[in-house]
Amino acid sequence: MKVRVLITLKNGVLDPQGKAIEGALHGMGFEGAAGVRQGKLIELDITDAANAADAEEKAKAMCDRLLANPVMESYTIEVMDAA
Amino acid sequence: MKVRVLITLKNGVLDPQGKAIEGALHGMGFEGAAGVRQGKLIELDITDAANAADAEEKAKAMCDRLLANPVMESYTIEVMDAA
Repeated sequence: MKVRVLITLKNGVLDPQGKAIEGALHGMGFEGAAGVRQGKLIELDITDAANAADAEEKAKAMCDRLLANPVMESYTIEVMDAA
Repeated sequence: MKVRVLITLKNGVLDPQGKAIEGALHGMGFEGAAGVRQGKLIELDITDAANAADAEEKAKAMCDRLLANPVMESYTIEVMDAA
């Protein structure tokens, strides 16, 4: 089952990379860009998931144990089509 | 208008970081993890967008000019709530 994990810095955690992107966008004339935050996107296939709920649970365990830093990051799990 | 940009390596482009994550997941007992790909997530607010279509167009221009590498990466733009 295809799963998409979105990992972002928690609110309040300084995001210098996002700030740099925002500055560059302003420099290119995109004055309306604000609140830019950069995060990570991880797409994977969980082949041994019985159903969407199981896939989400497995993905959550992966995030807690490897993918995300619970001190600074939060994550969102999206289970894609069950194809 | 809140916009979420998902940037992934194109299919066929080698993703060593994804492979490394996949290997680590297998080593932790997540045998079902397959096809792991790592990408970038950029969230931003486009304050001068008139509507969702305009926000998407502006985000597309940002991707083409700065955020994504068109040679190796593809991107998806999701316009979030119009709040």
